[in-house]
Amino acid sequence: MNRKLRYGMIGGGRGAFIGAVHRIAASLDNQAELVAGAFSSDAERSKASGADLFLDPARVYGSYAEMAKLESRKPAGERLDFVVIVTPNHQHFPPAQLFLESGFNVVCDKPVTFNLKEAVTLRKIIAKTKKVFVLTHNYTGNAMVKQARHLVSTGALGDIRKVVVEYPQGWLSTALEKTDQKQAAWRTDPKRSGAAGSMGDIGTHAENLAHYVTGLKIDSLCADLTAFVKGRALDDDGNILLRFKGGAKGILHASQICVGEENNLSLRVYGTKAGLEWKQEHPNQLVVKYADKPTEVWGRAQGYNAPAANSATRTPPGHPEGYLEAFANIYREAFRAISAEVSGLRQPKDLDFPTIEDGIEGMAFIETVVKSSKLGAKWVKFPNP
Amino acid sequence: MNRKLRYGMIGGGRGAFIGAVHRIAASLDNQAELVAGAFSSDAERSKASGADLFLDPARVYGSYAEMAKLESRKPAGERLDFVVIVTPNHQHFPPAQLFLESGFNVVCDKPVTFNLKEAVTLRKIIAKTKKVFVLTHNYTGNAMVKQARHLVSTGALGDIRKVVVEYPQGWLSTALEKTDQKQAAWRTDPKRSGAAGSMGDIGTHAENLAHYVTGLKIDSLCADLTAFVKGRALDDDGNILLRFKGGAKGILHASQICVGEENNLSLRVYGTKAGLEWKQEHPNQLVVKYADKPTEVWGRAQGYNAPAANSATRTPPGHPEGYLEAFANIYREAFRAISAEVSGLRQPKDLDFPTIEDGIEGMAFIETVVKSSKLGAKWVKFPNP
Amino acid sequence: MNRKLRYGMIGGGRGAFIGAVHRIAASLDNQAELVAGAFSSDAERSKASGADLFLDPARVYGSYAEMAKLESRKPAGERLDFVVIVTPNHQHFPPAQLFLESGFNVVCDKPVTFNLKEAVTLRKIIAKTKKVFVLTHNYTGNAMVKQARHLVSTGALGDIRKVVVEYPQGWLSTALEKTDQKQAAWRTDPKRSGAAGSMGDIGTHAENLAHYVTGLKIDSLCADLTAFVKGRALDDDGNILLRFKGGAKGILHASQICVGEENNLSLRVYGTKAGLEWKQEHPNQLVVKYADKPTEVWGRAQGYNAPAANSATRTPPGHPEGYLEAFANIYREAFRAISAEVSGLRQPKDLDFPTIEDGIEGMAFIETVVKSSKLGAKWVKFPNP
Amino acid sequence: MNRKLRYGMIGGGRGAFIGAVHRIAASLDNQAELVAGAFSSDAERSKASGADLFLDPARVYGSYAEMAKLESRKPAGERLDFVVIVTPNHQHFPPAQLFLESGFNVVCDKPVTFNLKEAVTLRKIIAKTKKVFVLTHNYTGNAMVKQARHLVSTGALGDIRKVVVEYPQGWLSTALEKTDQKQAAWRTDPKRSGAAGSMGDIGTHAENLAHYVTGLKIDSLCADLTAFVKGRALDDDGNILLRFKGGAKGILHASQICVGEENNLSLRVYGTKAGLEWKQEHPNQLVVKYADKPTEVWGRAQGYNAPAANSATRTPPGHPEGYLEAFANIYREAFRAISAEVSGLRQPKDLDFPTIEDGIEGMAFIETVVKSSKLGAKWVKFPNP
Repeated sequence: MNRKLRYGMIGGGRGAFIGAVHRIAASLDNQAELVAGAFSSDAERSKASGADLFLDPARVYGSYAEMAKLESRKPAGERLDFVVIVTPNHQHFPPAQLFLESGFNVVCDKPVTFNLKEAVTLRKIIAKTKKVFVLTHNYTGNAMVKQARHLVSTGALGDIRKVVVEYPQGWLSTALEKTDQKQAAWRTDPKRSGAAGSMGDIGTHAENLAHYVTGLKIDSLCADLTAFVKGRALDDDGNILLRFKGGAKGILHASQICVGEENNLSLRVYGTKAGLEWKQEHPNQLVVKYADKPTEVWGRAQGYNAPAANSATRTPPGHPEGYLEAFANIYREAFRAISAEVSGLRQPKDLDFPTIEDGIEGMAFIETVVKSSKLGAKWVKFPNP
Repeated sequence: MNRKLRYGMIGGGRGAFIGAVHRIAASLDNQAELVAGAFSSDAERSKASGADLFLDPARVYGSYAEMAKLESRKPAGERLDFVVIVTPNHQHFPPAQLFLESGFNVVCDKPVTFNLKEAVTLRKIIAKTKKVFVLTHNYTGNAMVKQARHLVSTGALGDIRKVVVEYPQGWLSTALEKTDQKQAAWRTDPKRSGAAGSMGDIGTHAENLAHYVTGLKIDSLCADLTAFVKGRALDDDGNILLRFKGGAKGILHASQICVGEENNLSLRVYGTKAGLEWKQEHPNQLVVKYADKPTEVWGRAQGYNAPAANSATRTPPGHPEGYLEAFANIYREAFRAISAEVSGLRQPKDLDFPTIEDGIEGMAFIETVVKSSKLGAKWVKFPNP
Repeated sequence: MNRKLRYGMIGGGRGAFIGAVHRIAASLDNQAELVAGAFSSDAERSKASGADLFLDPARVYGSYAEMAKLESRKPAGERLDFVVIVTPNHQHFPPAQLFLESGFNVVCDKPVTFNLKEAVTLRKIIAKTKKVFVLTHNYTGNAMVKQARHLVSTGALGDIRKVVVEYPQGWLSTALEKTDQKQAAWRTDPKRSGAAGSMGDIGTHAENLAHYVTGLKIDSLCADLTAFVKGRALDDDGNILLRFKGGAKGILHASQICVGEENNLSLRVYGTKAGLEWKQEHPNQLVVKYADKPTEVWGRAQGYNAPAANSATRTPPGHPEGYLEAFANIYREAFRAISAEVSGLRQPKDLDFPTIEDGIEGMAFIETVVKSSKLGAKWVKFPNP
Repeated sequence: MNRKLRYGMIGGGRGAFIGAVHRIAASLDNQAELVAGAFSSDAERSKASGADLFLDPARVYGSYAEMAKLESRKPAGERLDFVVIVTPNHQHFPPAQLFLESGFNVVCDKPVTFNLKEAVTLRKIIAKTKKVFVLTHNYTGNAMVKQARHLVSTGALGDIRKVVVEYPQGWLSTALEKTDQKQAAWRTDPKRSGAAGSMGDIGTHAENLAHYVTGLKIDSLCADLTAFVKGRALDDDGNILLRFKGGAKGILHASQICVGEENNLSLRVYGTKAGLEWKQEHPNQLVVKYADKPTEVWGRAQGYNAPAANSATRTPPGHPEGYLEAFANIYREAFRAISAEVSGLRQPKDLDFPTIEDGIEGMAFIETVVKSSKLGAKWVKFPNP
């Protein structure tokens, strides 16, 4: 493209967290600019947010429906190339459907929809509209996660036997939702968050990370979910046994009541030949362990990494990248697809971003763990929707 | 005591691993000396081992039965104060019974017996003989484990909600038992190891560590055990969900096929007020995490630790202690009990070493996880034998 | 400001490293946009770089002189609010002078000039023009560096006794400048880099970091510089003893021949009451050590940090920020000053970015260490230029 | 030997620190037993200490002179094979001379003597008496230090360019010697400690460690020593620039006023091909860094280590060894020499323990750094005594 991509945002106004993250991530590589938005269902709030962002007031809307209607009429030289959806979970599907069907490419925060059924429907809509749909499972944007995936896929670990993925946080260890904390409020509300609390918010990240790196598919699982904080309607902790197709076993645990933990997502994978470990809070390193030679610490941006890992970096070794850069890597890949779509070109074959398939798997994960837990933590087959 | 304690050893001859560990641990504080032994069922090998240790050949025996018989006749000034049993699991109960009933105090390696039934019987024998019985769950000897226990028991963590204990090793990731590796051979042999492989060898350590620190009792568990290495008769990996009495939840996983892992036992405990983390491979530190203040790294031998932790050290801060010192701490406590017994004094009230109760819990753990796994990883009530 | 700031760039075209870093840093918070540039002294190359960045070709220049001339004529609504200078060291002063005197605010990469004399002259120019001048000693932009400074300035460490600052890199451990590596070429060339190699490139960062955190001023130093790689004209390694005014002692060592080191800048400060440690490669943590209580690990974005630290973050705890975010924090503060200047308002009193004073100190550092080393590593008084 | 070695101890009575360390280290491998001692110059205290250790009261003496006289008369079957000297520094030389000249092998704590002159004299006495003399620079007993030495000596690092060795402690950051702390009292007293405080106590360890691993000899040095605590007669901190014969450069800093540091000895060595790092507080790992492949973490007792490293271990990988085990490794090597001497055999060629040469180098180090510092931190040639 010989110009920046233009995008609009749904949600992400004042007081939101993830909207600002998306805006930074989308603009980090100077390939896209925000030009429109429906930042809040409260029109005043939306306007104020648009002003904060120096947007043309005429393109700041009081609802995503209005935005879809008016933006659809824009001429080619002003038209949005994509929209970004960063509303709470229950408000993912409706705007996604509307904008796809209005001819826009869509980037959507995770989990993809409110429930599995919506996700399956969304797959059909995407297929029909032939628009690009990107799901921001951002942690897979990390360069060393890509290197981990490369090591597994090229056989450096041998056959995978065991996967341990964990995601402990501590921020919901008290009834924060009873204060005016907006982030806590919607995440613990079944009407906005969906069937799961911590499992939807962070368990799906853990599941997606494990899948991305290993390529393994869950065959069945046994989930013991808990709401530790009194009066909380959704799980704030979950411990899950996994059995993967092909025989590997695994553990996934995620929690938002692990006092003192910040955002401690980590993944360990053990194969017949080697093991690996990656920790999100120190994302520039990847540890690889062997039976008969020293443990290795691989560094981001080093020449020995695979191209897929090194194309997902901006700074030299030892100049740490973090959460925002990983998030921006999802956008960087998304832009390759969106640019092609906008230009009427064929989609590149090596695109590397989470899609509706990841979204469906995530929703299946949520529904399966909730089902298992409600049955008393019994083994449940993982569906193939 | 105004003399060193005298002890004999059963097992632990040439080629053994844990026997030498016990001898170092028992002698580290200059409170005990080895004077007799039945180091092997092969009389020649036993003699050779005794010679390596500079023992009087007359007190080196070809069988523990012979040893019990002849040592029982020794006069007071030569008599053994205790024996140490370091044979494979199936040979724990018979000598324990014989020596206890012959009037000797006993220190025994873990797991305490071949099966739960033997352990329960052993409890009766101990009660009847009134001898001291010490089980060497050595990891609880670590100073910072004692500090962790202190923090939990004094309420620093609040009510415990979640426990994550893991013990990955990698040394059995291939069929090592088919080479002439003696340690691998008996540990993977159901006739010598018992109902479990990795769960008995290291899973019980993990269970014991979690119990020692938290005081929590398992209410029920769901265990998925696997023998990943072809032809192996016992589990070499296990993933377990735990429910504790009182409502806490937990995860225990142990493995001997995690390629590249050395002896990576670790424990994390999260309560309503704080969390803690201890790693066996770096045992001189204890990490404590809070919601609203910086994470703390507590150091061994620092003045701020509890007496129970600081009495289990020999060197100043920063002069690292390790596996052997922790093991010796079990002996140090054992000697307080044995000295009292030998001297006809009342047992001290604050003894801090693993007992037959820990052994019974360990055997119940083994039998319960094996039962759960055989049922297809179903939830099974933890027995109260 | 109710609009984004407009800026132009001098240097930073294709093949450059730090130019792209500045562009990301300047735009991260959506407060500024690049609208002009003289990216290379090769006009073609400059044009191509401008096109990569989607700039209006009319505002892409073949020289900074041309840029200054033509941009000076732009009307208020298009006029540049500031320029960014990211050329090699010998090309800092000339454009800085020209743009300041042409009425532009200036952001300049470090070290500020080619030599101390230029830096002193530049101070006069800044004073005369009353424009904002910002020096991008980016590492002081890290949130936890600001927290470290806060702890020192509020007395949490007591009186400072010892400072250890080190900056080992390994990338110049071979004669990389003899290949076509552009970054290596100019950094090892006395005509473009100045009197020092590693001391100018990274030693000044170390000096600035130590000064920023402790507030201490160097009284005298003893520097042993070495060019280990054969044929290299400038130092690639230096070990320096420091004596600070007031009695504290210190060590500064920086190197570009420490094979295997990436960008391992770290700082340790010890006072009468506590010590602290910060490592650039893991910048989200700050370690604080005490005599009589556990070591603490402070985390970025936690509520217990000082406002100065927490205003320099964008993401919640555990969502790591890195090099680019720290760099952007320098810009964020710069924008407060530039906005005020552009708006004709008084400068805020609490501005927190490196200024010409830091630049002069850095140049004095370079000249003093070179002088000391040439004298055979003798003690030399630190000048007060 | 078909028996344990017999030894006596000079110093190390109640209240001492290092005496108990030596006793554990000497007995850890069951190769030696303590049978005599002059534990204190106070005869009562000596007796009490002997009783604590269950010694025959007849062999517990009120002075080392008495001990030498009476122990010299013992028959072969009771005769001491060696003595261990663990008194304060000023009391090393007199007993060493006496016992060597009385025909005993000697193990002596560091620094070897009160001053360099004594050390040189001691070398002559050792040569004349042909007895074994062992200096317990214990940190070189660590298995991974031996592996580091192996890597350097086999060229894995290429030519060494830079050495950074540091030893920060914090325990003397206040005037502890003015309380009744015995350890602090003699170490800060020029009459008992010698010309240096921290440099003698821990600086010599740092110097010895660097020399042991790299084999490099200091050509000249520039030392800036400080006594930060008011009224302290000896240095409690020192920063030193090093130039090695052959062109390598180095930094050595040691301190006892680094608040919050425990015993943080570490060594980094950079060569043309690789770098290495070892930290005493986590001694079971050795980090090796390369220009073009991942950083490696080597583990103690792993099969890939050199025999010299793996013969200095007792436990499998992941079962951490620490300070006492490293100390015991010095004794283990010493016993090979002492056994040969006692048996009238030729000394083994591959002995690996610190000798009088290390002691002389240490004393030369102390005198040179003190001299340099007194000259105002000027460069001083390292003597070759």
